[in-house]
Amino acid sequence: MQRTERRSDCPVNFALQSFGDAWSLLVIRDLMFTDRNSYTDFLNAEEGMATNVLATRLRQLQARGLIRRRGSGRGAPYALTEKGLDLLPVMLELIAWSAQHDRRTAAPKAFVARIRKDREGLIKELREQLRERHGL
Amino acid sequence: MQRTERRSDCPVNFALQSFGDAWSLLVIRDLMFTDRNSYTDFLNAEEGMATNVLATRLRQLQARGLIRRRGSGRGAPYALTEKGLDLLPVMLELIAWSAQHDRRTAAPKAFVARIRKDREGLIKELREQLRERHGL
Repeated sequence: MQRTERRSDCPVNFALQSFGDAWSLLVIRDLMFTDRNSYTDFLNAEEGMATNVLATRLRQLQARGLIRRRGSGRGAPYALTEKGLDLLPVMLELIAWSAQHDRRTAAPKAFVARIRKDREGLIKELREQLRERHGL
Repeated sequence: MQRTERRSDCPVNFALQSFGDAWSLLVIRDLMFTDRNSYTDFLNAEEGMATNVLATRLRQLQARGLIRRRGSGRGAPYALTEKGLDLLPVMLELIAWSAQHDRRTAAPKAFVARIRKDREGLIKELREQLRERHGL
């Protein structure tokens, strides 16, 4: 979904126009759940994103205020913004859904169990860790 | 994301490969939160999906077990499967995120407040309504 004009005021559509491209959401995943935070890191994710696709997605995510650069210069790492960090509950629900419906899922069982049993506690804990790691 | 081969076992990637195309998720939205349940209905959603795009997405969503036809014949309405219905928590989090970050959101305030204050109760209630409406 590359068009920038707003299609509707529907909240689902707004979310999809903000980050609802698969490659964009994989960048958010990397920033949220892995140590990958550079252009090269994202390129090396196992899904194999093309370099031009990645460049476009990073620009869009920055323009929409979901990610930012920390520091200046070409090598400055990417980090989540508050708005990006607020996607944590969405990501946890995506993970829980896949864990339930995909027999080959790589989602760690203990993590998925905690999403189900202690959702609020997990969100609180992860938010604190992420705020610290991303300088928020 | 049209390729059908599996890119990784990551749960976020699995979710994105299952329904993580913006148009696919708008079909799920229509089935979940509106009365739209036919090809023509989906075409008429305000986001303005192209007919060939819609046809492809409906085929993929059926192949991946997220939606089904109720009855046979060209006019048979679409409905959610259990697997599709299980996306309800994801959709609620998308709505909550957009309501928080989009000043022009069309998300009803009372609904958003209930996502925040009575999430479990809301999910239970909506699941029951949807199961009945979608013949599950």
